[in-house]
Amino acid sequence: MTERTRVRRLPDKQVADRAVLDSILDAGRLAHIAVDDGGQPFALPVTYVRDGDRVLVHGSTGSRLFRLLAEGAPACLTVTLLDGLVVARSAFGSTMNYRCAMVLGRGHALDRQAKERALHRLSEHVMPGRWAEARPPNTRELAATLVVALPLDEWSVKVSAGPPEDEAADLDWPAWAGVVPLREVLDEPLGAPDLRVDAAVPAYVRTWGRL
Amino acid sequence: MTERTRVRRLPDKQVADRAVLDSILDAGRLAHIAVDDGGQPFALPVTYVRDGDRVLVHGSTGSRLFRLLAEGAPACLTVTLLDGLVVARSAFGSTMNYRCAMVLGRGHALDRQAKERALHRLSEHVMPGRWAEARPPNTRELAATLVVALPLDEWSVKVSAGPPEDEAADLDWPAWAGVVPLREVLDEPLGAPDLRVDAAVPAYVRTWGRL
Repeated sequence: MTERTRVRRLPDKQVADRAVLDSILDAGRLAHIAVDDGGQPFALPVTYVRDGDRVLVHGSTGSRLFRLLAEGAPACLTVTLLDGLVVARSAFGSTMNYRCAMVLGRGHALDRQAKERALHRLSEHVMPGRWAEARPPNTRELAATLVVALPLDEWSVKVSAGPPEDEAADLDWPAWAGVVPLREVLDEPLGAPDLRVDAAVPAYVRTWGRL
Repeated sequence: MTERTRVRRLPDKQVADRAVLDSILDAGRLAHIAVDDGGQPFALPVTYVRDGDRVLVHGSTGSRLFRLLAEGAPACLTVTLLDGLVVARSAFGSTMNYRCAMVLGRGHALDRQAKERALHRLSEHVMPGRWAEARPPNTRELAATLVVALPLDEWSVKVSAGPPEDEAADLDWPAWAGVVPLREVLDEPLGAPDLRVDAAVPAYVRTWGRL
C-alpha cells in the first residue's frame, strides 16, 4: 500500500489481501480506465483480463486515449462490482454493497507475439471456450489492435458487504431495513440473423453465467 | 459535440441525441468519475442522478478526490451499461453491446439547502419511494456530505447494439454466432438481522427492478 492507495475514507472497508484483488478482477468483465489527455482526465470503459501480476486491456490503434495508455501515461484501472442496495433506517446510512479494485500505474504496449497470446486470454476471460472455435485474428487485425499491460504493483481494494449499519438511536425508527441483492445475469442466447451454419448454441456458451 | 467529445473510433456508434444521453444516465446506478490528483488520474466509482441539465454526485468531505471535484477540477463522468456479449465468427469482431455516456466538465459544490434537495433526488433515483420513510439527514450528516453538480454541456454517447457484424468472407465460418443478452437483476430483499420493527418488505422496495 502506498500513500496514494491508502484509503482515507471508510478505512475499515480497505482490504490488503492480494487474493481479494485477484478475485474481484477475475469476477468482472468491465473496467474503467482513467487517463489524462491535455489536462482533461477521461474515464474510458474497457474489457480486460488479469494475467498473473498484470492486467491486460485492448483497444484500437485508432483510439487516441489507447495510444496514450500504450505510451505509458499514468493510468488508473477501476473495476466495481455492485452486490446490493443497502437500505438503512437513515438516509445517510443507505448505500450500496460493492467490491472495488483500483490499480494505479503506467502501462506498456505488447509486441506482436505477446499480443496474440494476450488476445487469447482476453477472449477466454469474457467468452470461455470461444477462442478455439472463432476465426483467429489475421495480420491486419492484429496490426490494428493495441494491447496494453498494466502491472499489479500499486493497488487498493474496498469491499462493502453485509446488512445496514444503523446507529443504535435509529434502530427503533419505524421503517423496514435490509439489503436488496443485485447481480448480473445472462439471458437466452440469440443466434445471428445471418447464421448460415446449422449450429445449435454451443455448450460452452451456456456456461457463461456470472464470471 | 466538441473536438474533445467527437468519437474518432467507430464513429458510426456515436449518438448525438440528447434524449439518448438522458435515457442512459437515467438507467444507471453507478458512474466512474475520472479526476486528476497531482499528475495521477483516478477512476472513482460513485452513485449519481441526472437532475435536468446536470448530474449530481455525492461523497464525503473526508474524500480527497471528492474535495477536488467540489473545487472544480476537470472531470469526466462515465456511465457504461453492458447489454450483451456479441459472439462473432471472428475473434476480432467479437465484442460487447453497451450504452456509454461520457460527460466532461468542472463541477461545483452545492450549498446546504440545495444539498438537501439533491440528496433527496439521489435517493429517489436508486431507491424510489424510500426518502419518505427513511430517517432524514441531520445537521451533522449534511455537513459531512459533499454534493457536486456537473453540467451536461459537453458530452458524448456511444451505443453498440444488435447482432455481430462479421465480414462477408467470414459468414461460412463453421461456428455459431450471436448475442448473449446481459442484464442486472435484483433478488429477494433480506431484512436486517437487527430489525426491531414488525415490518414486511415495503411495496416500493419490490418495484426496484432495473431502473
